[in-house]
Amino acid sequence: MRASQFLIATQKETPADAEVISHQLMLRAGMIRKLATGLYTWLPMGLRVLRKVENIVREEMNRSGAMEVMMPIVQPAELWEESGRWEQYGAELLRIGDRHGRAFCLGPTHEEVITDLIRNEIKSYKQLPANFYQIQTKFRDEIRPRFGVMRSREFIMKDAYSFHNDQASLQTTYDVMHAAYTRIFTRLGLDFRPVIADTGSIGGSASHEFHVLASSGEDDIAFSDTSDYAANVEMAEALAPAGKRPAATKTIESIATPDAHTIDEVSAFLKVPTSEILKTLIVYSDADEECNKQLIALILRGDHNLNEIKAEKIAGVACPLTFASEEDIQATLNCKPGSIGPVGVNIRIIADRSAAHCADFVCGANKDGFHLSGANWDRDASYTETADLRDVVEGDPSPDGQGSLLIKRGIEVGHIFQLGTKYSEALKATVLNENGKDQTMTMGCYGIGITRVVASAIEQNHDDKGIIWPVSIAPFEIAIVPLNLQKSERVREHAEQLYATLSGLGYDVLLDDRNERPGVKFADMELTGIPHRIVIGDRGLDNGMLEYKNRLESDNQDVAIDGIVDFIQQQLPR
Amino acid sequence: MRASQFLIATQKETPADAEVISHQLMLRAGMIRKLATGLYTWLPMGLRVLRKVENIVREEMNRSGAMEVMMPIVQPAELWEESGRWEQYGAELLRIGDRHGRAFCLGPTHEEVITDLIRNEIKSYKQLPANFYQIQTKFRDEIRPRFGVMRSREFIMKDAYSFHNDQASLQTTYDVMHAAYTRIFTRLGLDFRPVIADTGSIGGSASHEFHVLASSGEDDIAFSDTSDYAANVEMAEALAPAGKRPAATKTIESIATPDAHTIDEVSAFLKVPTSEILKTLIVYSDADEECNKQLIALILRGDHNLNEIKAEKIAGVACPLTFASEEDIQATLNCKPGSIGPVGVNIRIIADRSAAHCADFVCGANKDGFHLSGANWDRDASYTETADLRDVVEGDPSPDGQGSLLIKRGIEVGHIFQLGTKYSEALKATVLNENGKDQTMTMGCYGIGITRVVASAIEQNHDDKGIIWPVSIAPFEIAIVPLNLQKSERVREHAEQLYATLSGLGYDVLLDDRNERPGVKFADMELTGIPHRIVIGDRGLDNGMLEYKNRLESDNQDVAIDGIVDFIQQQLPR
Repeated sequence: MRASQFLIATQKETPADAEVISHQLMLRAGMIRKLATGLYTWLPMGLRVLRKVENIVREEMNRSGAMEVMMPIVQPAELWEESGRWEQYGAELLRIGDRHGRAFCLGPTHEEVITDLIRNEIKSYKQLPANFYQIQTKFRDEIRPRFGVMRSREFIMKDAYSFHNDQASLQTTYDVMHAAYTRIFTRLGLDFRPVIADTGSIGGSASHEFHVLASSGEDDIAFSDTSDYAANVEMAEALAPAGKRPAATKTIESIATPDAHTIDEVSAFLKVPTSEILKTLIVYSDADEECNKQLIALILRGDHNLNEIKAEKIAGVACPLTFASEEDIQATLNCKPGSIGPVGVNIRIIADRSAAHCADFVCGANKDGFHLSGANWDRDASYTETADLRDVVEGDPSPDGQGSLLIKRGIEVGHIFQLGTKYSEALKATVLNENGKDQTMTMGCYGIGITRVVASAIEQNHDDKGIIWPVSIAPFEIAIVPLNLQKSERVREHAEQLYATLSGLGYDVLLDDRNERPGVKFADMELTGIPHRIVIGDRGLDNGMLEYKNRLESDNQDVAIDGIVDFIQQQLPR
Repeated sequence: MRASQFLIATQKETPADAEVISHQLMLRAGMIRKLATGLYTWLPMGLRVLRKVENIVREEMNRSGAMEVMMPIVQPAELWEESGRWEQYGAELLRIGDRHGRAFCLGPTHEEVITDLIRNEIKSYKQLPANFYQIQTKFRDEIRPRFGVMRSREFIMKDAYSFHNDQASLQTTYDVMHAAYTRIFTRLGLDFRPVIADTGSIGGSASHEFHVLASSGEDDIAFSDTSDYAANVEMAEALAPAGKRPAATKTIESIATPDAHTIDEVSAFLKVPTSEILKTLIVYSDADEECNKQLIALILRGDHNLNEIKAEKIAGVACPLTFASEEDIQATLNCKPGSIGPVGVNIRIIADRSAAHCADFVCGANKDGFHLSGANWDRDASYTETADLRDVVEGDPSPDGQGSLLIKRGIEVGHIFQLGTKYSEALKATVLNENGKDQTMTMGCYGIGITRVVASAIEQNHDDKGIIWPVSIAPFEIAIVPLNLQKSERVREHAEQLYATLSGLGYDVLLDDRNERPGVKFADMELTGIPHRIVIGDRGLDNGMLEYKNRLESDNQDVAIDGIVDFIQQQLPR
């Protein structure tokens, strides 16, 4: 491609309304432009990247045996009513009416449409398993679209849906998709982790998210420093501390702690580390038959955070987790929330595994303005049971027993999910089994945020000069920058010849033949993140040399004209 | 691809609600499925065709120097208000409101969005010309979607928009696009014609439609049997008949024609061919300053049809063309519409060129129940002027002076259009010219109905067994059909080996490894239109032979196993 015939819409200023680096750089590098809130046009420079991502995803989906289809963006309300989601889905589902007043929506996802298709097309267990995917535009009417294409309203997803006779078959395809996703993100050149994820309210039995690691990510990922283990922080199990609980060495005493209500205040006041203070959170139990709810105490170390998802999964605890009102706490425990502790309390007490391992701890005295120090389990207080109640922290042992946990931030770019029969049951998607009986299909679903992948690649790979593309998705692999092109016939000839040679070898080459100063050209090539740059100038040619620079390196190197093609082929083997 | 791992969703019955053959065959061949009125899912078999069409279009657009972009499907109302189309566009524009109540539409076309983009991105005349295209989903809320993907509500278009400093530059790009479209439809393997089209209400100076010729087409195309000339029937000029008008040979006489009002009735009653009867149509003139309208008589030969577009273009004739009421005719001419003629009439008379060439003609007598025979121009009646008022008919001389016109039906699949400054003026899309002054950009637009191309290819290429794909867009190029695969190890080995060899050579091969009877496999391969079929059976193998059949031919031929790869390479050179 010749730059003179290509829209290079770079900008020097950082746009004021772009909060994250990928949004800033996509605007500055002329990849996208905002049409309206959460709606972006992809310019030629950006679309080249997007198409490369799409192609890698398509190739690996095909290789995995999935079949490409294309379902409409506009979907009829009837199917969503059948699944129950017409009511359940919030305002993110953009509902529309056609000219005849019939109700439709813009598809944020396609479970209903594919399940409707397959219940009509697949009739026999012999036709299963089958896995269908599409690369299609989706729409979610986000209440606060932000971060450019990272969280836009209109976006492109690869979504796949698999259908099975049983769980074992689903597990096989799920593993195939896990492997395909691993190949995809590897080919995309990204540092990523497949992490164990919460299956949330959709139900289903297993789920992995694929995260691109980047400090700007919205999710915390815990992963082993030794093994492949990785999980959302919310999902990672916090193991019980090794060994026996230390023996009690102190006597219990009550200390006045006026104005010290939070853990940090108590820690500062008593000069005790937060890890030696236990905090007590009071939540409700499930309602019994008379609709009465009991109070339950959750005990954690002061330096640990309650993990609500884990707490909700404990039998008898209200789901969603609900904290007790001050009145109910006062009525039962006779004190305010800032002074509660497990000593002498006659309600169900669930101690986090780490909290249950503490000795000589500080805790609330169940008396306003007082805490207890030197408290010990068994001797002074009892818990009903122990459980994993907390988020893991860096340094915790990895739940798979191998190494310790690191925690980094990640951007979710993919999600694979064992749906089970949620949609196939609702839509009565059955096949005839070996005995001629109707059998509900088991389903899996598998998504990749295509547009979001582009932004996440930038979040992970950039410097103060701009984007640093992984070569597999760079808009161009090589930039040829001739200097003084308009005046030097010799420079022009060498540039044209090298452009023709490298293009002929199948490389994506941008020949910067614009009538711009060298500094402008260099800045644009760095901002747009082209991995390899070759500068052709009269001074170098005098010595038979060209100047090569890798976007990842700070220094140039001289390469002989005769050797430049070999050199590039070594850098970019085909 | 192995058929056992591919969704072959063929159907024997012709769907009741599919009116045209392409819709029937796309359903029967398992290419598409209806989701709701005018909304179709593309199944794997159909999507393979669609992607091949897309790729050919993309390659040729890139080759023509156009840059690919991608604009949102959801567009803000503001831009449409700026162009004036928010009011003008009818109910086909699906208007929607987002969660905040802001007005948007689903894009039926993208003139506003691209013009908005370019007015912000391109500032100098030096950056022009520039041509941008996308291959994107569009939505038009058709009042009566029909014919499957031929006229659906959600569909895929390639739309391109070019920007220029002047008309000469537009004309150059227009010619480049004309050539690109010609390459595209040639590569698609279709019999097509670029035809001169009406520029309609959009304005602009030049327009060509690209039509796929098919008897089921909705448009009549007139084209020369000798030259490249082709035009919409409405647009083709009807030349004046050659030579001088024949001399009068008869005397005029009045004949009672009770109950004969139409041309056909008069022709039958008087036993005179319709070509010798003149019909007189009374329309209104433009209103004058006092809002008065005059009557104008349009005279045509009885066997010719009035072309309203041509009539509207005559100065002084009301546009849109409006026929006079019976009362106004009675008041001025003193007779009913069925008996009007040019003799003795004192209003403006415009005679079609062919009507003006008639002698000894029959016409209305301006007296109810009477016609005149043996009437002649000059002697008995006068016209104010002559004009081209009629549709051409087959056999008319070609307007370019070369050969005669043929008329065939066509399906519009592409349209190129010189927009001029319609949108750039409305949206104030200017560049700085050489003198540093604002100058409105000149625009062109260029569309191809990607999904419609697929249907039109079928309308043009099918037989009673199913689809006959042009090889460049066939879902698979070659079908290998092994017989008795489940029992014959020898058949399996040969089939697998040939499948591997041909796939390795880059051919799109479908190996029909399904456990189905030969008749089912043959019918499916013919219905889905795969161009080349190779049957492998024990009987043939006994003699070292395979059976080859071309979808275009009715007979099989035996090909030696050793020679089959060479044979295919001759049929499908790479």
